[in-house]
Amino acid sequence: MKLKNVVIAGLTFAVAVSSAFAQMKADDAIKVRQAGYRFMGWNMSRIDASLKGEFKKEDVVKAAAAIQAIANAGLSPLFPAGSDKGTGFHETHLKSEFFDPANSKKVAELFGNLAKESGELAKVAATGDKEAVKVQYGKLGQTCKACHDDFRKSDH
Amino acid sequence: MKLKNVVIAGLTFAVAVSSAFAQMKADDAIKVRQAGYRFMGWNMSRIDASLKGEFKKEDVVKAAAAIQAIANAGLSPLFPAGSDKGTGFHETHLKSEFFDPANSKKVAELFGNLAKESGELAKVAATGDKEAVKVQYGKLGQTCKACHDDFRKSDH
Repeated sequence: MKLKNVVIAGLTFAVAVSSAFAQMKADDAIKVRQAGYRFMGWNMSRIDASLKGEFKKEDVVKAAAAIQAIANAGLSPLFPAGSDKGTGFHETHLKSEFFDPANSKKVAELFGNLAKESGELAKVAATGDKEAVKVQYGKLGQTCKACHDDFRKSDH
Repeated sequence: MKLKNVVIAGLTFAVAVSSAFAQMKADDAIKVRQAGYRFMGWNMSRIDASLKGEFKKEDVVKAAAAIQAIANAGLSPLFPAGSDKGTGFHETHLKSEFFDPANSKKVAELFGNLAKESGELAKVAATGDKEAVKVQYGKLGQTCKACHDDFRKSDH
């Protein structure tokens, strides 16, 4: 083996090891993403309660801020390759289609929509305008649904 | 039964029913708080990784924002009376002492510290000053530890 090839082989190995460390174990990643979506879900239900009953602005502002910050936290490390199989707090609902390269543009778009529409909701919540919150809450809910429809198993 | 007493009995019942609806089921509340703390924990570890290695400002800012928003989301509904027993994603670690009225001032103080120090971390993260982030990350970690020491079972 020529020196150049040894160096390249060494670098390749180093990169592989470093990636292995940098990448979370699938089950840990699944657990954390389940946690994030669960916490967002609770906050969606708090906003829903304010829309259906007495509008509690402070509650809605806090809930929207939590959703916005989680959605914009940079969630991609929580979806390592192969994590369409595995158990975090429970078996993952992620469909294998999520990792199909043919869908990568769509997946990026869906994450982008979640980040954008949750950011809009946080802005609208600050105005305290119940009707505007209702409209934006609906838009955010549609981004959740769009992703669930395509990439979340509903059979368990 | 006099009319006045009937009315009072009716009101008492109505309040009881309404509280039952307003208050989350213990296991649901436990699940959501476990989710919130798990997601905060992941973000603490992201900041820790930036402090121990290459400082990735954007990552730190996002992580700190998520911690801050969760810590300030208004977590008290996630600790309904009796939720020192129960299973969310797993059996709760909450000690019964959490609900001892003698500790209510201390509990409020600990929640206040979490909210305050996480808010400070978000501000410091925005400056991109690694050393300052390290100091504030340490302070926030102390508020986590203070609460765990007093109110979190470590035996499982």
